Order: sequence, then structure tokens, then C-alpha cells
Amino acid sequence: MSLSYELYFLLSHWLSAEALTQRPRYSDHSAETFQAALDLAERLAREHFAPHNRKADENEPRFDGERVHLIPEVKAALDAFIASGLIAAEHDYEFGGMQLPQVVAKACMAHVMAANVATAGYPFLTIGNANLLLAYGSPAQIDAFVRPELAGRFFGTMCLSEPQAGSSLSDISTRAEFEGDSPLGPQYRLRGNKMWISGGDHELTENIVHLVLAKIPGPDGKLIPGTKGISLFAVPKRLVSVAGQGDSAHVTVGERNDVVLAGLNHKMGYRGTVNTLLNFGEGKFKPVGASAEAKAGAIGYLVGEPGRGLNAMFHMMNEARIGVGLGATMLGWAGYAASLEYARGRPQGRPMTAAGKDPASPQIPIIQHADVKRMLLAQKAYAEGALALNLFCARLVDEEKTGETEQARKDATLLLDILTPIAKSWPSQWCLEANALAIQVHGGYGYTRDYPVEQYYRDNRLNPIHEGTHGIQGLDLLGRKVVMAEGAAFKLLGERVKATIGRAVQSKSADTRRWAQMLGERVMRLAAVTQTLWGAGDPQKTLANATAYLEAFGHLVMAWIWLDLSLAASAAWDESRSDFLHGKWQACRYFYVYELPKVDAQLALLESLDTTTLDMQDAWF
Amino acid sequence: MSLSYELYFLLSHWLSAEALTQRPRYSDHSAETFQAALDLAERLAREHFAPHNRKADENEPRFDGERVHLIPEVKAALDAFIASGLIAAEHDYEFGGMQLPQVVAKACMAHVMAANVATAGYPFLTIGNANLLLAYGSPAQIDAFVRPELAGRFFGTMCLSEPQAGSSLSDISTRAEFEGDSPLGPQYRLRGNKMWISGGDHELTENIVHLVLAKIPGPDGKLIPGTKGISLFAVPKRLVSVAGQGDSAHVTVGERNDVVLAGLNHKMGYRGTVNTLLNFGEGKFKPVGASAEAKAGAIGYLVGEPGRGLNAMFHMMNEARIGVGLGATMLGWAGYAASLEYARGRPQGRPMTAAGKDPASPQIPIIQHADVKRMLLAQKAYAEGALALNLFCARLVDEEKTGETEQARKDATLLLDILTPIAKSWPSQWCLEANALAIQVHGGYGYTRDYPVEQYYRDNRLNPIHEGTHGIQGLDLLGRKVVMAEGAAFKLLGERVKATIGRAVQSKSADTRRWAQMLGERVMRLAAVTQTLWGAGDPQKTLANATAYLEAFGHLVMAWIWLDLSLAASAAWDESRSDFLHGKWQACRYFYVYELPKVDAQLALLESLDTTTLDMQDAWF
Repeated sequence: MSLSYELYFLLSHWLSAEALTQRPRYSDHSAETFQAALDLAERLAREHFAPHNRKADENEPRFDGERVHLIPEVKAALDAFIASGLIAAEHDYEFGGMQLPQVVAKACMAHVMAANVATAGYPFLTIGNANLLLAYGSPAQIDAFVRPELAGRFFGTMCLSEPQAGSSLSDISTRAEFEGDSPLGPQYRLRGNKMWISGGDHELTENIVHLVLAKIPGPDGKLIPGTKGISLFAVPKRLVSVAGQGDSAHVTVGERNDVVLAGLNHKMGYRGTVNTLLNFGEGKFKPVGASAEAKAGAIGYLVGEPGRGLNAMFHMMNEARIGVGLGATMLGWAGYAASLEYARGRPQGRPMTAAGKDPASPQIPIIQHADVKRMLLAQKAYAEGALALNLFCARLVDEEKTGETEQARKDATLLLDILTPIAKSWPSQWCLEANALAIQVHGGYGYTRDYPVEQYYRDNRLNPIHEGTHGIQGLDLLGRKVVMAEGAAFKLLGERVKATIGRAVQSKSADTRRWAQMLGERVMRLAAVTQTLWGAGDPQKTLANATAYLEAFGHLVMAWIWLDLSLAASAAWDESRSDFLHGKWQACRYFYVYELPKVDAQLALLESLDTTTLDMQDAWF
Repeated sequence: MSLSYELYFLLSHWLSAEALTQRPRYSDHSAETFQAALDLAERLAREHFAPHNRKADENEPRFDGERVHLIPEVKAALDAFIASGLIAAEHDYEFGGMQLPQVVAKACMAHVMAANVATAGYPFLTIGNANLLLAYGSPAQIDAFVRPELAGRFFGTMCLSEPQAGSSLSDISTRAEFEGDSPLGPQYRLRGNKMWISGGDHELTENIVHLVLAKIPGPDGKLIPGTKGISLFAVPKRLVSVAGQGDSAHVTVGERNDVVLAGLNHKMGYRGTVNTLLNFGEGKFKPVGASAEAKAGAIGYLVGEPGRGLNAMFHMMNEARIGVGLGATMLGWAGYAASLEYARGRPQGRPMTAAGKDPASPQIPIIQHADVKRMLLAQKAYAEGALALNLFCARLVDEEKTGETEQARKDATLLLDILTPIAKSWPSQWCLEANALAIQVHGGYGYTRDYPVEQYYRDNRLNPIHEGTHGIQGLDLLGRKVVMAEGAAFKLLGERVKATIGRAVQSKSADTRRWAQMLGERVMRLAAVTQTLWGAGDPQKTLANATAYLEAFGHLVMAWIWLDLSLAASAAWDESRSDFLHGKWQACRYFYVYELPKVDAQLALLESLDTTTLDMQDAWF
């Protein structure tokens, strides 16, 4: 196995990345420049990110009351990453970017995440932050924040949750009071507390740009209940002034804003990413800003329209959800790689043949045992399948941006909408399971901190939680995505799946034809189940098993991806790569034999409109 | 929920523990003495074990080159446990024991394990060690080792694995050379390395009794390959001398034996249980022993017959496997309790009714959300079901020991044999899943070290590994247990299941009758699948999916347990306990709706004699 070759295969033989170079935006690029970027990312990952992955876990961020201390390797790795230009891999030349397709940029990020997902968190958040501001910020805000972000001078965060409002954003109570106009737009003073803020404070960069959800009080001074009252603000850790504009903008960092680190969260994993509780406007600093009055309150600049903050934040959130999926995927990949290496090198036991009965015969490497092969195949199917899905989503972003027809661009948006909860939740669930299997392959050694797999398992346990829990993804999928635009996204995805099935039924391989049939039957059943659920006439009943729906839907999407990958492997047949291509085919076989049948029980549960959970009473626990 | 009431219900309303007091061995006991022991265990758990569960995790054992340092709370808790007499809860009055049925003793242990599974590890191992010596040791060995163990002066270990021989015990290379007779039986000198030894070194007790698998060389000086060459030895950390015998035996601890701590394993969890690599006979100490010659080599006394060591060790191993299952169960229980409390106290979101659409309405506790109820019900079904299974096994041990007919005693042995891999593997898999759900219920808080659930999850990850991995349990079940004695255990278990089904089909509840049918159909199918597998004519094919067999078998056993528990709840109907009894019924419903259908895909896989894993080639990964 080789991540470099895997990415090459996906980009070249499955996603036709090279074809993007025909489009004006990418016309300076070629297969060679794509590969050069990937090689650069692979080298950075190996030389700068991987070496401190364990050390950062063992030395979590420390707050001395004034500053956050990280091990120096984190900054060194990020400085190298910034120097390479990869932080702006997908961005316009105008911003110093490489203007690579997102599918290539994400493939680069895959290398970095596989090496050290926690350190990769900083640029990951910063890129998402910049992308939101590019979409919703004013030109002045872009000059002030995005340009320094893409130059690696500032890092970014997303500040949504509050201690009393995690999944329920409509209940946030951070307050933003209008103060006056400023060069960076309407200026507000923010007061409130934000929880679970990754990258919320550190000394890695000159400045940190917080994108903060808060509520502007109504004329009666009260906050408007619900999500409609939410606005979005850019709140820098240090205030900035901008001379010039556009290419020649010069950003200077000035006084401290009233954003204060209240404490660090001490996590089970992902320890290299500092995770914070931030207080906005508690008065420790009294910034002057454009109001010319030194006073308590964190200065923030309205981004986009008032009351449309959640809508804007979802631009970053959706990107972050797919990014969380990619992080989960690469942890799964890293565990797969580690356990594969271990299984090849560890002799233990004998074959279950007549020859194996001689206890004087030498032990065999454990990779030769069927159950170990099962655990490795499962990891392969989970990690490679998830990687394919995540790069497919990145490719959709490119299509959304540069698709040749309006229809193509609209379709890409619809597919992205419906696939986002899957791209987030499926890797979070199954690549965590992959990490559990990676430990199991190692036996007792895997449970020790001398081997890397226990850390991957701890790190990955975060991914079903942050950026919308597993349960929230289910509600998003069943409650919103499958019915939006009168089911247009659901229908479009179904057409794509059927197109793959249509090719598969013409295969010379009886297995492939059978898989196509297995998938086709279940996709039909999913459509019927979806109708049954929405015909229940009671949202409680419709959504009671949204998580089972999410999981069944995810496995069907992955069965589609695997069928498509197996066809791509057949199409790319090359004797010199036969092992790789056999492996793809066998992983697809694994998925159809071991995984896809799991959805039947879930679909049956959903069909029955079962109310076990609704009927359960608090007192009965 | 209350663990005390749960145990009471299982003992009184399901396992008829009180009926045991009719048997001579337990005739001094009564429902009151059983309850007194349980209350004592509950108090010890709460006052001495629970308070340092986190602290022991944060301060793992440290080796300064001479001694192992543990936090003092561990010894304090164990001293209290010893002073209570519970270490000998199930043992004969003759050994200072309480002569309680094992089912009561294990219920006591459940309290302690729920509070602190790592500290509970020391007495757990010591009891198993003593039980093996009681079964296979000579009277002198029992005086020398068992009596001090049951008095809490010595602790015990089991030394099986070696660095090059984990799951493959036939490949151990620790060598035992005969030296002469001694008061404690044939004396040998042992040389070799033992890996993963829990409780392998510490200062908690005066002495440590290692039960060590080693090979006696043949006349040619070579070790006999395979398990037939394995013998068992008692190897104390410090040599002992015994004056008197039986009740009046007086054991004195003397010189250090040549057993040396080579290092500690640094684990992901279970950190309070010191886990060691031990060197036997490297010559750091030169004990004299009965040979009257000071020389290198760890002095060990043969236990049982030469070449029958593995057989004897399985006495401890089987007990340890069920004990691992109980530990996994109680971690699952602890996480369930913690997440239930959290879910009741955490307001977040609104109901999915019309009323819930008003964002100004107050938030509701998350326990009211269907998906949270699902996660709690799953934990309840896993933890309570696993606890029932484990106590059922303990009840079988009592039956094996005191059953009123030879047939009853033989049947108990058969059932224990076939249920042991399930009692070990099922809680290890599903109560770990329960812990994952406990984190998920907590959201981001569950991922921090401020809440206990992340530790339970880390601790529990060990359980599918030690005392025979998940894969080994599958091979044991399918490769040995279901076919042994011409399938007698399999047949007997089937009869017990059918007896429960027979009662359930007469229920007034249509649900219960349907569950009985669901279970009956699948049990029939399992029997057919078992025949198909053993008819494959190739052990590789038969055993290729032994893990899937184990998992399907385990879910069927648990469906049987839950059906039986729901019948017991109906039979015990009592208005004042209606919430508890409703809860049992609803958990059974959860199991039949959400869990049992999972086996269909596994049985289909097994029926097909699929060879995906066998066909997979190393090079294709």
C-alpha cells in the first residue's frame, strides 16, 4: 500500500482530475503540477508532521494564565507548511494561492492528516475561515483577514458552541451590540462565552481571526430567540489596520481585543489541537477600535447580513464537516498502514492445514490468518472507501465552481448537500472502527503507547462528535437533505448510483453483476423507506430512527463508491499494477459480502416505523 | 437505576440464589447474609475503590529500577477489601472464607469492578490463582500459597504469554529444569521471559505467587514442541517456608527468588493494574531454596502433572475469561450510569412537536430525544444483558460444584464450556460499544477528561484482547466447543433456549410471542449453519468466519437471556417496582427490534461458506 499511489489512482483513474486543466481556472496546471503538489505534501507530512505526532499527544497544550504553550515542533511544521504555499493551495493567484482544484488540494491535505491530524487542524480551520470570508466578507474584510490567513500570518477559528448551547445553536446567548461604522464594516461589541473552540488561542501566528456567531438585540434590548436572530462577526484576537487595498494591502496588527482564554479542554485525543473556552467581552482588555473609546467588549465586524449568520457559517461548517470526514479517514488509513506492517512482520501461530499441525514447524506471519485478513480488509474497505468519497466531494466543489454548464454546477451543489452528512459521519464511524481493528491486529502491543494505533483510536473518537454529532447528521440527512427541493438531491444521487449499476450489469464478471443487483435492490428499498418515513405524518415518528437511516444510507453510498471503484480498477487494468487492482476488486468484494447486508436490518427497522425509543420513559431507565 | 437493585433482581427473581441455601455447602446462609455481603461490597466500592479510579489512571505505575510505585489509595482500598473478608467470599470456611455461592461472590465483585476495574484486578487474579491451586496443587502448596492468598498476604498472577508467543502458547520457550524434591513438591529452575503479566510486581503484599507455564526439556535437552510439552509451576517472588499444616500452617517469607521485573507496559487504559514484562532466571538473584545451592534460575514447584500444565492453567484461564467479561460488563454499566445521569441533567434542544418549534420555549433534557433514548437503551440492553449472562455463568459454577444430581453437575460443566467464549467476548465487544455511546451522549464533554466516560472507553478497549483475543474466542467456540462431546454442549444449550421459548409462546403479550418466534427461527438456522460449516470438509473454510459465528452466536445467546429476563420481570410484577420492570421489558424489546436482526447477515455469510478472506493475498493489500 502507498498513499501516494492511492491518491494518484483516485485522481487519475477515477476522478479525471487532469480533465480539469481544460478549464480556464486551472489552465496553467497539468498532471505534472498536480503530482508536484502531492509530492510536496507527502514530503512535508513525512518530514515535519509525522515526527511529532506522538510527542504532541504526550505533551498537550498548557496554559500558564497568560499564554498557551505548545511543543515547538507544531510551529516548525506549520511554518514549513506555510512556506510551501500549500495553505493557499486552492486559492486564487490573486491571494498568493496556487489555484489548484480542490480535489488536488484535499489530496495534499490527506497526506498531512495521515501524518498528524492534530497539527493539520490549524491550517484546516484557517482555510475554512478564509473561504467563508471570501464568500461573505467585504473586500476590506478580505484584505484585513483573508490575505494574512492565506499568507500564514493569521490563523482562523469557528466559534459556534456555548456551554449551554452545543448542538442547539438557536440557544446561543453571545450578544453583539452595534457601536458604529468602521473601515472593516459595521462594528459591534460582543459579550459571551464560546466553548470547544479549536485553535482558540496560541502563539503560532501573529493573530487569530475568530468567526463568531452572536445575536444582535432587538429594539427592546432582548435577544431574538431562534436561529433567525443569529449574525456572524469577524473578531480578531488583535485589532488590525489596513493600508492600501487588494494586492497592495498592508495589514498591521495592533492592540489586543477583548477576547480572553478562559481555559483549555483536556481531551482524550486530538491533543495537539488546542481546544479552548473563550470569553468575549469580559473586560480584561479595553480595546479602542474605530469607536475611539477604550472599553470592555470584544470588537467584531459584521460579516454578511444581520440575522443571516447561521447561513454564512454553514459555508464553513459544511466544509468543516467534509474535512472532519477526511481527518477521520486519514486516521483510519494510518491505522490500516500500521497494522498491515505489523501483521506482515509478526509471526504467530500456524496455518489450519495438515502442515500447520506440526508444532515444530515455524510460525507464520499473522497476515496469513483468515481473521487477520478480515480485519485488514475491513480497514482497507473503510479507509480507501472513505477517502474516495471525500475526494469525490472535493471534486464536486470544483464542479460547483467551474462546471461547464449551469446544470452541472447546480447538480454538484445538490450532490454535495446530500453527501455532506455522509462524508462526515461515515468515516467518523467506520474509520474509528478501522482503528479498533488496527489495535486488535496488534494484540496487546496495540494497547500500549509504544505503538501508534491506540492514539489513532483516541484521536478518531472525536470525529463522531464535533461539527455536528452523528445524531445531528442523521436529522440533517433525513429531516432536510432528502426532502429539500422536492427531493431533487435524493433523486439526482439515485440517478448517479443507477448509472454505475448500469455499467456494472454489463460487466463480464458474474460477481460484479451480482453486486450491481444487490445494490439496485437496496437503493429501491431505500427510496420506498424514505417515502414510508415521510408518510408517517408525525415528525417524531419520521425522525425517531434518523441515525439508522443515516447509517443505512451511508453504507449504500459506500457500496456505490466501491462498485464504481471496482469498475475503475477493471478499466485501468495494467499487469504491472495487478496487485493494486486486485486489491481494489477484493475490497469491493469484502464490502458486498460483509458490509452491505448490514443495511437490511436497518431498512426493516425503518420500514416498521418502530416506536421503541419514543415509547421509552425516563423513569424506566 | 441502581446496581444494588439490579443485582437483587437477578439473584432473587431470576437465578433463585436463595434456593442454594438448601444445599449443605451454603446451609449457614440466607437471603439476609447474601444481601449483607452485597451491601458490604457496595460500601467498599463506593468508599475505597471509586474515589481513586481517575487518580490511578492519571498516575500510572512507575518503576524506579528497584520497586514499582502505585498511588497509595490502591493499597488502602485493597487492604479494606481484604479486611472485609470478600477476597475469600466463595471459599471454604476452612480457608477463612465466607463460603458464599459464586453467584453471590461475583455479584459482590460487580460492585467493585463498576467502581474501579483496575484496582479490582489484583484480587480478581489472586482468587483465580488460588482456585487453580485448590484444584491442582498439593496440600503443601495450598498451605504455602493459597492460605496466604485468601488472607490477603500474597497476591497471585498468571504467566502465560511470552514476547514471541502471545496467542500461540505452544511456542513458549521458558525452560524448567528439574533440580530435586522439596517440601512444596518437585523443584525446578525456570529461565525465560513472560509478557503482559498483570500484577507482576508491586509492594501491595508480602509476596506474589506466579503461576507460570514452562517446558521441561526432554532427555535430549530440547524443549518438546507444542502444547503437550507445557507444564505448570508455582513461582513465588520470595521463597517461603511453612511450619505446621492445614489450619495451623504458618507461612514465612524468605529470600528473593530469581524473578525480576524487566519493565512495565504503558497502556492506553487499565492503568491502575500494573502490567509487566518479567524475567525468570536471569541471575539477578541466586536463591538457594531446597537445593541448598545458591544459583541463578527462578525456583518453581511443579503444579499437577508434567506436560499437563495447559490443562491446569485453563482452570484459571476460563475463570479469568468470565471475569474479563464481568469487568467489561461493569465498565459498560458505569458508563451507562454516568451518561444516564448526564442525559437527565443536560438541557439541549426542543421536542419535535409543534410546541418545540417555538425557540423561546425552554430547552428540554436530552434524555427526551429519541436518539439519546436509543443510546441509553442500547447501553442498558448491553450492560444489563451482559451482567445477567455473567451471573448466569457464576450460577453454573455453583451448580457444577453443588448440583443435586450428577447430571445437573455435568450439564453445568457443559453449559459453562460453551458459554465461556460468549461470556468473555460479548461484553468485551458490546459493553465497549456501550462506552462509545456513553461518550456520545455526553457530546464534547464526554471526550474530555473532566468526565469519567472516556476512561471507561479506554479501559474497556483491553477486554477484547486479553485472556484470548476476540478471534481466539471464535476459534474456541466454533472449532472446539460446539463440536465437543459430539455436540452435547451445543445441544444442551439449545434445549435451554427452547425451554424459554416454550414459556414465551404462552405469554399473553403478542410482542413476547413474536420475540419467541424470532428467536426460535434463528436458533434453528444457527444449528443448520453449524452443520454446513462442519460439513465444509476443510478446516480453513469451516473456521474462516469463526468471528462472525462467535458474534451471531453471542447475539442469539443474549436474545435468549433477554427473553428470559422479560419473562422473569413479568413473573415478578409488582406495582411499586413497575418502572424497573417496564424497563426490563423495554430493553428486551430494544434487543429484539434493533439487535437480534443483525445476526441474519452474519448467518447468511456463514451459510455461504464465503472465501473472501481466504482468497485475499498479502500482496493485494
